[in-house]
Amino acid sequence: MPVFYDCSTAPSPRRARIVLAEKGVAHDVRQIDLASGEQLSPEFRAINPACTVPVLALDDGAVLTDNAGIAAWAEAVQPDPPLLGTTALEKAAVASWNSRIEGECFMAIAEVLRNRAKGMKDRALPGPENYPQIPELAERGRARLGHFLDRFEAHMAGRGWVATNDFTLADITAGVALDFAQWIKVDANEGRPAIAAWRERLAQRPSFAL
Amino acid sequence: MPVFYDCSTAPSPRRARIVLAEKGVAHDVRQIDLASGEQLSPEFRAINPACTVPVLALDDGAVLTDNAGIAAWAEAVQPDPPLLGTTALEKAAVASWNSRIEGECFMAIAEVLRNRAKGMKDRALPGPENYPQIPELAERGRARLGHFLDRFEAHMAGRGWVATNDFTLADITAGVALDFAQWIKVDANEGRPAIAAWRERLAQRPSFAL
Repeated sequence: MPVFYDCSTAPSPRRARIVLAEKGVAHDVRQIDLASGEQLSPEFRAINPACTVPVLALDDGAVLTDNAGIAAWAEAVQPDPPLLGTTALEKAAVASWNSRIEGECFMAIAEVLRNRAKGMKDRALPGPENYPQIPELAERGRARLGHFLDRFEAHMAGRGWVATNDFTLADITAGVALDFAQWIKVDANEGRPAIAAWRERLAQRPSFAL
Repeated sequence: MPVFYDCSTAPSPRRARIVLAEKGVAHDVRQIDLASGEQLSPEFRAINPACTVPVLALDDGAVLTDNAGIAAWAEAVQPDPPLLGTTALEKAAVASWNSRIEGECFMAIAEVLRNRAKGMKDRALPGPENYPQIPELAERGRARLGHFLDRFEAHMAGRGWVATNDFTLADITAGVALDFAQWIKVDANEGRPAIAAWRERLAQRPSFAL
């Protein structure tokens, strides 16, 4: 059975956890304790030299070391329910929104957190190398997030889901990101009724309790 | 016929230009002059409010506003030659490497360029909002790029192509990125024979002359 390397408190592996649940991909779980730096241990480096979770280790020895790889694999081995779109335009919309949410939202939140938190000194980026915090980047991340959320509210007005008429990977990425925003004390719902209504819909999915 | 909004000198639209050429997707071209800020004009904002190229405007009125969307659409409408992998593991490898190259390489180069260039004052990020340059981010980008290139050299040793046994989107993203690195005076080939040999192979593809 595939082994999923997870960290139950962290936003990045939560994205893959939800994908695997939506797809019904059975797997064992190993928790990696990011708080104590277990991702930097020799044992975990041997599994993923990039020192990040999520990781999905397959039965045939292949190791998928990020959300992009896990989502693409899961869609191919278990097409139902489709999470990456069905028609060409849907596939484009999912890929585009997923990429945009990663860059403009997820990354912006991470920039705020990692460049300010005392516990993340010299850990301004995930991975094997240390990088010093850049306080201006935390500030910029907060500004970027605000701009993104306003655009996202306009986009979500009158829509059921982020990228297509159905729940897709873009909803997973955005939903996990906006829960992550609470770590930097940003309530994305405040003054944004379309986002709030969509997050209510997300909260009704069993996978989002994971 | 689809209209491709391009900027012949810029790396991001070059990625989509190569995808369309590899797929043989016929299109008209409109050049957007990034040097003079045409991407911020009301006319272009009406096409893509994110103020970026590439953009592909389709006959049915749909507008694809980034590389992620254009690549996903092109793979769906024109499966041959496949650029996103064929088996589940190949699809995972292409998605994973593409994402990694974007984050660890393309972004690192852009950070150096945009946070240093005099002509990019207050344009530290693309898009409709202005952000001040952060000199530390330029420094960090240069360090990140060096680490990535060393890892990439180790990965490419003995390989023909980046993600699978065939040329894929990951080769396009990486190849365009390493040409882009010359803008910040980084020669990725120097001391890295596997990268140099792979770039020789890329240079033989007609699409890479675009």
